[in-house]
Amino acid sequence: MVEQVLHAIQDEYADDYAWCYGCGRLNNDGLKLRTGWDDDQTITMYAPRPEYTAIPGFVYGGLIASLIDCHGTGSASLALHRKNGHEPGDGVEPPRFVTASLKIDFIKPTSHGVTLKAIGKIEEIHPKKWKVMTEVYAGDVCCAKGEVMAVVMPKTFTNEK
Amino acid sequence: MVEQVLHAIQDEYADDYAWCYGCGRLNNDGLKLRTGWDDDQTITMYAPRPEYTAIPGFVYGGLIASLIDCHGTGSASLALHRKNGHEPGDGVEPPRFVTASLKIDFIKPTSHGVTLKAIGKIEEIHPKKWKVMTEVYAGDVCCAKGEVMAVVMPKTFTNEK
Repeated sequence: MVEQVLHAIQDEYADDYAWCYGCGRLNNDGLKLRTGWDDDQTITMYAPRPEYTAIPGFVYGGLIASLIDCHGTGSASLALHRKNGHEPGDGVEPPRFVTASLKIDFIKPTSHGVTLKAIGKIEEIHPKKWKVMTEVYAGDVCCAKGEVMAVVMPKTFTNEK
Repeated sequence: MVEQVLHAIQDEYADDYAWCYGCGRLNNDGLKLRTGWDDDQTITMYAPRPEYTAIPGFVYGGLIASLIDCHGTGSASLALHRKNGHEPGDGVEPPRFVTASLKIDFIKPTSHGVTLKAIGKIEEIHPKKWKVMTEVYAGDVCCAKGEVMAVVMPKTFTNEK
């Protein structure tokens, strides 16, 4: 498994789409999640800030949902970008996805103070609709499993006519 | 529909369980979500901070997930508390729930700058397991639908033996 993500898909998003609280590199209040390839799987690593508490000692479920959400859209973007012949780092703007649906099973309490790893497997449902199955690990413990249905961002998210 | 939540279940959580990033009254970095009854439905209102952006102009999906999550556990707590003969404001500590699973369909982009309202309907699955179906509105627009399966907090979340 990679120790860090060198080339993240979020590094390549157009500036207008780089303000997401979860994964926008320009949102300085946000999580700045970064998602890259690890062989044919995808990976996002994140060490939760102290305030992302559920019960003291454990990570907030909404933070885990955010991690799975942005990992999902990032993974879908990586996959379609690769299908189009590109990799993050080659300077070509990737497709931007949004989340159509999100399902999470919280399996075990997630200990705070550990870097979380979201590992994703991607399936093409349709050229503009990709499913990402994610497992979130705290150390060796799988704490949550998620499914994101990601779709290419529709024009309702922009000012384009 | 109520204009504000006078007696929220989160006001009654024990101090040790009031640090949640989403709904802990003692977490000053968090959202301080507050959930109360509105007839036989439950309601949580929240005006997203500017940084909770997805694409500029629209609210971050992870924030909506957090709203649905804490609204779900709060609603389950309200329901079991009422079943036990209590209402928030009567000074009796309510049961504390955690989220077993979370499902969200994002129906429409959620405009920023509008107070969101999460409206919940609750179903008892088992005395310690409650399902909360939630609709999130921005103004009159239903932007997301969620289902939370909430369970009474197990001892794995505490230091109790």
